[in-house]
Amino acid sequence: MVGENCYDVTKYPAGNPREDIGAVINSIIADIKNRQAVADVNDGGKPGSVIYIPPGDYRLVTQVVIDVSYLKIVGSGHGFTSSSIRFNTPASELAHWHEVWPGGSRILVDTSPEAADGEAAGAAFYVKRGGNPRISSVEFADFCIDGLHFIDDGSGQNDAENTYRNGKTGIYVGSANDSFRITGMGLIYLEHGVTVHDADALAIDNNFIAECGNCIELKGMGQASRIANNFVGAGYRGHSIYAENYAGILVSSNNVFPRGASSVHFSGVVRSSVTGNRFHSFYPGMLVFAANCCENLVSSNHFLRDREPWAPMQKYDNGLDDLFGLLQIDGSNNSLIANHISETIDTKYIKPPEVKPVIINVVSGSGNYIASNHIVATAEISQKDKSDAPNSACFSTQVSALLSTGNSTLLDVTTVLVQKESVRNTVLDSGNDEQVVMDRTVNAFRGTPVPGQ
Amino acid sequence: MVGENCYDVTKYPAGNPREDIGAVINSIIADIKNRQAVADVNDGGKPGSVIYIPPGDYRLVTQVVIDVSYLKIVGSGHGFTSSSIRFNTPASELAHWHEVWPGGSRILVDTSPEAADGEAAGAAFYVKRGGNPRISSVEFADFCIDGLHFIDDGSGQNDAENTYRNGKTGIYVGSANDSFRITGMGLIYLEHGVTVHDADALAIDNNFIAECGNCIELKGMGQASRIANNFVGAGYRGHSIYAENYAGILVSSNNVFPRGASSVHFSGVVRSSVTGNRFHSFYPGMLVFAANCCENLVSSNHFLRDREPWAPMQKYDNGLDDLFGLLQIDGSNNSLIANHISETIDTKYIKPPEVKPVIINVVSGSGNYIASNHIVATAEISQKDKSDAPNSACFSTQVSALLSTGNSTLLDVTTVLVQKESVRNTVLDSGNDEQVVMDRTVNAFRGTPVPGQ
Amino acid sequence: MVGENCYDVTKYPAGNPREDIGAVINSIIADIKNRQAVADVNDGGKPGSVIYIPPGDYRLVTQVVIDVSYLKIVGSGHGFTSSSIRFNTPASELAHWHEVWPGGSRILVDTSPEAADGEAAGAAFYVKRGGNPRISSVEFADFCIDGLHFIDDGSGQNDAENTYRNGKTGIYVGSANDSFRITGMGLIYLEHGVTVHDADALAIDNNFIAECGNCIELKGMGQASRIANNFVGAGYRGHSIYAENYAGILVSSNNVFPRGASSVHFSGVVRSSVTGNRFHSFYPGMLVFAANCCENLVSSNHFLRDREPWAPMQKYDNGLDDLFGLLQIDGSNNSLIANHISETIDTKYIKPPEVKPVIINVVSGSGNYIASNHIVATAEISQKDKSDAPNSACFSTQVSALLSTGNSTLLDVTTVLVQKESVRNTVLDSGNDEQVVMDRTVNAFRGTPVPGQ
Repeated sequence: MVGENCYDVTKYPAGNPREDIGAVINSIIADIKNRQAVADVNDGGKPGSVIYIPPGDYRLVTQVVIDVSYLKIVGSGHGFTSSSIRFNTPASELAHWHEVWPGGSRILVDTSPEAADGEAAGAAFYVKRGGNPRISSVEFADFCIDGLHFIDDGSGQNDAENTYRNGKTGIYVGSANDSFRITGMGLIYLEHGVTVHDADALAIDNNFIAECGNCIELKGMGQASRIANNFVGAGYRGHSIYAENYAGILVSSNNVFPRGASSVHFSGVVRSSVTGNRFHSFYPGMLVFAANCCENLVSSNHFLRDREPWAPMQKYDNGLDDLFGLLQIDGSNNSLIANHISETIDTKYIKPPEVKPVIINVVSGSGNYIASNHIVATAEISQKDKSDAPNSACFSTQVSALLSTGNSTLLDVTTVLVQKESVRNTVLDSGNDEQVVMDRTVNAFRGTPVPGQ
Repeated sequence: MVGENCYDVTKYPAGNPREDIGAVINSIIADIKNRQAVADVNDGGKPGSVIYIPPGDYRLVTQVVIDVSYLKIVGSGHGFTSSSIRFNTPASELAHWHEVWPGGSRILVDTSPEAADGEAAGAAFYVKRGGNPRISSVEFADFCIDGLHFIDDGSGQNDAENTYRNGKTGIYVGSANDSFRITGMGLIYLEHGVTVHDADALAIDNNFIAECGNCIELKGMGQASRIANNFVGAGYRGHSIYAENYAGILVSSNNVFPRGASSVHFSGVVRSSVTGNRFHSFYPGMLVFAANCCENLVSSNHFLRDREPWAPMQKYDNGLDDLFGLLQIDGSNNSLIANHISETIDTKYIKPPEVKPVIINVVSGSGNYIASNHIVATAEISQKDKSDAPNSACFSTQVSALLSTGNSTLLDVTTVLVQKESVRNTVLDSGNDEQVVMDRTVNAFRGTPVPGQ
Repeated sequence: MVGENCYDVTKYPAGNPREDIGAVINSIIADIKNRQAVADVNDGGKPGSVIYIPPGDYRLVTQVVIDVSYLKIVGSGHGFTSSSIRFNTPASELAHWHEVWPGGSRILVDTSPEAADGEAAGAAFYVKRGGNPRISSVEFADFCIDGLHFIDDGSGQNDAENTYRNGKTGIYVGSANDSFRITGMGLIYLEHGVTVHDADALAIDNNFIAECGNCIELKGMGQASRIANNFVGAGYRGHSIYAENYAGILVSSNNVFPRGASSVHFSGVVRSSVTGNRFHSFYPGMLVFAANCCENLVSSNHFLRDREPWAPMQKYDNGLDDLFGLLQIDGSNNSLIANHISETIDTKYIKPPEVKPVIINVVSGSGNYIASNHIVATAEISQKDKSDAPNSACFSTQVSALLSTGNSTLLDVTTVLVQKESVRNTVLDSGNDEQVVMDRTVNAFRGTPVPGQ
């Protein structure tokens, strides 16, 4: 029989994909398992299938549960648009909008997860399989998962659509896995975009994962994975890119924009790379290495921190002050080489008031190598408040803020602070004698030469 | 109804895609707008569509005008081949060629734009929509746009197919946009490949855009975009990668080959990254930062400049001399770190004669940080003229030239020149005391140590 | 006629793709050539075609021979799983496995190549065309090529499935070519994954090429190509990424895991880049520049060498000892900048016993620039032998080994060794005075400052 391993959710005889695409896909998976029942027949037997989601709006009421290898779910459109701008635009303006929802091959996640049931329960796509081998080569490509709305967080702010909370996860992988691919997706308005446990050789490439509470989270333990060429931007209290107890990750060429609590947060991650990314944040703590991260490379990245220019979000931040470090390092033998770091802020917003902001803060460990980093710190000169721009003008507000490099003076910062707990570090050409603060009897130092001296 | 949002240009009932695919696609877009007329119905309503272009030759007479979000136009083949070699090969040889045109899912741009009508008028695909929200998530993937021929430029050279002029643009985006994707395309023999105004989170990835007058141009103003993993190579008077008034661009892992007037030209671009690219050029001015570019990072790139080895193009260049700088920087607080820069040229081709070529030329601004760059300058020893190789042997001529590293002597160059107008720059390990020319009383300097000294 | 250039191997009237997909594809190619017979008709004529391979198991008995441009062969699943783990797992355990073979759109290479016939004879897909122009824009995407088994190598080890030998090649390109793309593929259990001669503007991106004897090999001569964003890992005697006589290659953002004899091996390669990769190896000789490689850039890479932790493979290695250099450079004017290099090994495994391992070994040439590299060398403290872990627990064994950064002491190494044959090199901030061994009268040196000195 031909074409038996190609499914189209709109042509499958069971269920209605417009009303519950989850039930349809689960039915397809059952069909695959029924048809591909024998593990070894004629040197094969379980090649898996592809499930196609044409452009359209598909409500998901039933969670999809994937426990077969070699399943590819693919659409024809990542369908991102900014729901954040939309939900901060007055209804009177919205009435004239061309469209108000994301699109493409779009899953509307219409589940009602209970917080008590945990993250897995709130997942639109839940991958889990016990036994051996690890589930392999599941692929998600080129469709949109939209969490629709955020919900009130009980803070009394009465600002539900800006909470980044709704208990929903786009893709949740709960068991050890190999050679998965998540590519070309659009994920939006989910509390968690992609959460993967125990990954080996996972690729998360070329996705658009933004306006999610958290975007990419690697949990459990794992190795040899890549997060590359994504557009990423979490909410003010979430992670844009997070990993714990992983080795050999390559975080490369991502464009990570605000407003994540961090751009990259590693916990106990070792022998991994963060190279060639562009990071933009509104808060300190852009890159955090916690819980003894060792032997990682951070190179050729562009870091920019400035202040939130868009009125609806100016009341939120990640709670960290300017002594935390734009980058904070807990761990040993890491390398920070050849990065550009820009911080620009009106001095009246520095917290605590009048402190010198810390750019790279080494809080523990030893043997870190910090060399050839260029740190540019400028104080914006106060302008008239821009908050009278309409909320729908988010784009022009942001770009205008970014382009305003001229209207500033130099800001005095500590470019590198090595805490007493940390020793045998080497700091080269990453700040002059006054900008680098550490015990020079137990660390090595060569200051960036100062013009005219 | 199923599959309603999937179109195939060869199966659409209106028009003939072989004769005018533009009219067919416009008819499809009208159908999408007619079917998806309501902005908000059942949490959706305008998911867009996918239009498939199977492999084949499709003439485009009517400009495609796109004003709907979430439209994906996709083919099955980028179809690049070198029309430049073909048009410089004698007809007698061509008679034996297997094929002479590009292929794949190929659009033959057969419009006759008037220069007076501007670039938009000459576009095969023209995206424009007023009002709100910005048009979002339009995607172009995996097809070929071929401008067919260049035309005489009135220079009297009688060399029409080598002018890089025909008034045609492949994709022209004329209004503010969000989360567009241009991936896997092949663009050839267009005066402008891709021109995008006012982009937010634009991805231009994995394309093959070559033998175009200009390849990638970001205009207006914009932010947070990525140009990655492309093959790019403009004509001798055009831009390979150009941007103006953008912030937060990531230009990463591109392989940019000759013969663009520049490899990267930024004008008023700030807080952006150029990392991990391979650049090859035949002229000075490979990377130009003009009009006060600030806080950009240029790192881990490989720059190579040598002389055009292919006879048909040796009479052309970009008009710049060797004092212009292989890289020219107008702006402040930029970082040039960890780049390799090779220049190799027969001294008889240096312009003005016998000057010391300038590699990095800082012409204005302040606070630039230039560190750990390795500059290799060699003088080729003259060989017998290779121009008697047949024009069709472009490939072997080019590779032979590139591989000939052995036959050279050291060339005396100024590795870094900081003009008087520019102050407070820092130059470290990017040339020795004699190779770096600047006022050391107002800039900081540490020379690369010299062997044996 | 519509859709004539779109083929589906399961719907083509000739042959049975389950029994011999090779014969089916050859028949399709013959049909394309028959239908597209005229080189220039109405500005086109030979646009090529797309051949779709749905998910499924397809045996290949007849070699596919490709001699038409613009042919795209595409599947819906790379289908990788670890056959290496499977073949090292006892049958009693396998009986409970969910699946045992790779999947996706999977080619089972069931040919019986004779070694005497050479690599081309053993290729599943063989691309070759004489004459002009060079064959262009052939694309392979998103399917799996599985060599099924390795065979006994006559070594007497009686370990056939671990020999990485079977005479099979996945894709072999034997003649000059332009603008090819190999993307999203899964290649496994082939003696050679992808071998391409004489490439121009070749893209090998986003593939999973592992458990092959050799993975990516660029031969002959060529230019301006890209190997990016791949997962790669060859066998203990093969190359993960190999190139000879190429210029302008960009090897970028790959995650290269063990156990290749090398991660990158260049022979006579010039003016190329190795940037932003993550390399992991179990042996010395991770990066080898042989036969006078010149003007290449190696930057922002993470290198890790430790010892094979998985029992079935611990008896194999690449035969090199610790004096060979983790990186060995034969050539001139190369740049090694801003890399992190970790070596961790129990001192009892150092060969020859008790030598100081060499990290960067410059064996010939001149003018190399080695700056801002951070070399971390640690001696693992012996633990109880982990080889009693079951072989199927490869993943947890590997990750546990990688995460064990704490249990070690500093290891004394030569960070940079410049042999007498090599002169006029510059070594900066890549080891202290004792760690860098070279003739300081003919090379330039600045040691990394030492803490407390």
